[in-house]
Amino acid sequence: MTTPDFSFTLAGQDGQARAGLIATAHGKVPTPTFMAVGTAGTVKAMTADAVRATGAKIVLGNTYHLMLRPTAERVARLGGLHKMMDWPGPILTDSGGFQIMSLAKLRKLEEKGVTFRSHIDGTPYELTPERSTEIQHLLDSTITMQLDECTKFPATHKEAMDSMELSIRWAKRSRDAFVKRPGYGQFGIMQGNVYEDLRRHSAAALVDLDFEGYAIGGLAVGEGQAVMFEVLDYCTDFLPAQKPRYLMGVGTPDDLLGAVARGVDMFDCVMPTRAGRTARAFTSNGIFNMRNARFQDDSRPLDENCTCLCCTRHTRAYLHHLFRCEEMLGPMLLTIHNLTYYQNVMQGARAAILNKEYDAYCADVRGNWQRGPDA
Amino acid sequence: MTTPDFSFTLAGQDGQARAGLIATAHGKVPTPTFMAVGTAGTVKAMTADAVRATGAKIVLGNTYHLMLRPTAERVARLGGLHKMMDWPGPILTDSGGFQIMSLAKLRKLEEKGVTFRSHIDGTPYELTPERSTEIQHLLDSTITMQLDECTKFPATHKEAMDSMELSIRWAKRSRDAFVKRPGYGQFGIMQGNVYEDLRRHSAAALVDLDFEGYAIGGLAVGEGQAVMFEVLDYCTDFLPAQKPRYLMGVGTPDDLLGAVARGVDMFDCVMPTRAGRTARAFTSNGIFNMRNARFQDDSRPLDENCTCLCCTRHTRAYLHHLFRCEEMLGPMLLTIHNLTYYQNVMQGARAAILNKEYDAYCADVRGNWQRGPDA
Repeated sequence: MTTPDFSFTLAGQDGQARAGLIATAHGKVPTPTFMAVGTAGTVKAMTADAVRATGAKIVLGNTYHLMLRPTAERVARLGGLHKMMDWPGPILTDSGGFQIMSLAKLRKLEEKGVTFRSHIDGTPYELTPERSTEIQHLLDSTITMQLDECTKFPATHKEAMDSMELSIRWAKRSRDAFVKRPGYGQFGIMQGNVYEDLRRHSAAALVDLDFEGYAIGGLAVGEGQAVMFEVLDYCTDFLPAQKPRYLMGVGTPDDLLGAVARGVDMFDCVMPTRAGRTARAFTSNGIFNMRNARFQDDSRPLDENCTCLCCTRHTRAYLHHLFRCEEMLGPMLLTIHNLTYYQNVMQGARAAILNKEYDAYCADVRGNWQRGPDA
Repeated sequence: MTTPDFSFTLAGQDGQARAGLIATAHGKVPTPTFMAVGTAGTVKAMTADAVRATGAKIVLGNTYHLMLRPTAERVARLGGLHKMMDWPGPILTDSGGFQIMSLAKLRKLEEKGVTFRSHIDGTPYELTPERSTEIQHLLDSTITMQLDECTKFPATHKEAMDSMELSIRWAKRSRDAFVKRPGYGQFGIMQGNVYEDLRRHSAAALVDLDFEGYAIGGLAVGEGQAVMFEVLDYCTDFLPAQKPRYLMGVGTPDDLLGAVARGVDMFDCVMPTRAGRTARAFTSNGIFNMRNARFQDDSRPLDENCTCLCCTRHTRAYLHHLFRCEEMLGPMLLTIHNLTYYQNVMQGARAAILNKEYDAYCADVRGNWQRGPDA
């Protein structure tokens, strides 16, 4: 069997909302899809089997974390990230740029790239578009991201333009450094902040480089959902219909529903995993804080519509107890549930798009969020 | 189907070492057996499915922790500890006494029982033999332990005698308070420190109360392995052959092998779970510290003789990486492995006893511990 080319096939559309299928060297991903974040080669608090059981088809790895520990060269010696973390399926890796700006110390941004010191031990590093691409190759990433600068928010038109243009130059260098292999892809990242002309310009320049997919960067950085949706309203139109579109770092289930309605296919966010570790549950009936004493005698499943291990085997009262006692099983079970819930929302969205009833689906899901824990 | 009586059947013996089968209302337990410690209604860092996958047939719950949170009455309302923690199999609960003495504040020991303040919020509690037995009934414990006083070490003969005699009076009150149900049992706890006459006296008094099994308490409290084995050399003889014998709070795999050789059937200890959270691995080739840099490029499985999730899916290098990054998956995987290793040692012991080759088995297992990580 030959490895399939990296491809994206549209299976259906309802308004701007798309149902598709990404085919890769490591398997297929029905879209819209949510990618669980596996920061340092592990989706926090989850075995790989548990991640699979949520319905996840693709996970994300963080170049910044992995380049520091265990290092890209070591991951390569261990046979790549898939083998290391027991995830033979598709893996998307970010470029490292975003986390350097948020986590690293003594950052210096220049035309050639970014120099910084590790937040762990102060070791100096340089990350260029070429090195970021090489690292992702060493990790054996299924989908490599270009190195970009995530423009700060708010930014003036001039600031956003300068930053966007740097990202385009880095996109070209990243693309040149990318080693093409069957079933592997590389995504360019659109920038341009909240300026339509810049988004249009950025998209056009990236499309010229013929990436296998396109990400929308520089959103979910403080602008709020309304502004994010406004930007999405126009900027997905600038991207080719026959390539996947990935909105980086987003978001709440409500954000996902709104972005899918605006033509986005892929998402990643730490929200469901981080929330799982801090007792916040995403459910069909809204968001619950499992530390709340209202749950201490609640013998119902967390979410009666969910078939995950947490919801089929345990009660809300038990989850409450585990978080009160700071038992690791609390974060473990709630991460399982939250990721399952995100996958269920995306699977439901896909089915609804194929049935041309996406608006009704969103209205139904959103309506249920108002019901609360005693529904 | 009627619930079977609580029973213990000897299946084989090799010297003093015994292979048996405990039958309970919640299932059967081949012995010798190691009970994973599920302190507050969860074996730390493990789902119940993961505990089952280690081969564990019985787990232990801590009365002290559960009486504070979520409380015995709440566990009862939630359908009992089995249902709450997704463990339909046998559960043994301790009496609470040992942890009150080690954890609680402002303890006061009197004839009627112990009064103390919770180590969590200072709330005052009283634990009597009757209340301890009632709590374990509310938890729906398969095997209830009598309330005893674990004599301090070292202790004079007089101190050990007085303490042992209090434990006997509490044994009688615990036995009177125990509600007999088919398939449920209650164990008395032998005390007497390192004094043979006291151990003999304690055992005889407990046997008069006709418990379903007998524990050996007051060991593994600082006396060292040699002294512990000396005490075991005589004190298992004081216990009836047709009842299970449980050595409380023990120990290392080497302790287990030596105690089985001296006629012990059951064990519990936090060691494999606690070690799993602190990067200490129990393996066929000895004990490793997974934080050691020697493992950073070690692509071998942790223990090539082990079929657990950790050993079949991941490398030593990955475990090392997880612990360096303080990722929860490190403790999760290593707890899975350590508990599996303990179960494997006990299963191997049982098979060896049935084959009358227990000494050779111990020599082989102990020999392999000397090999170290590079074997």
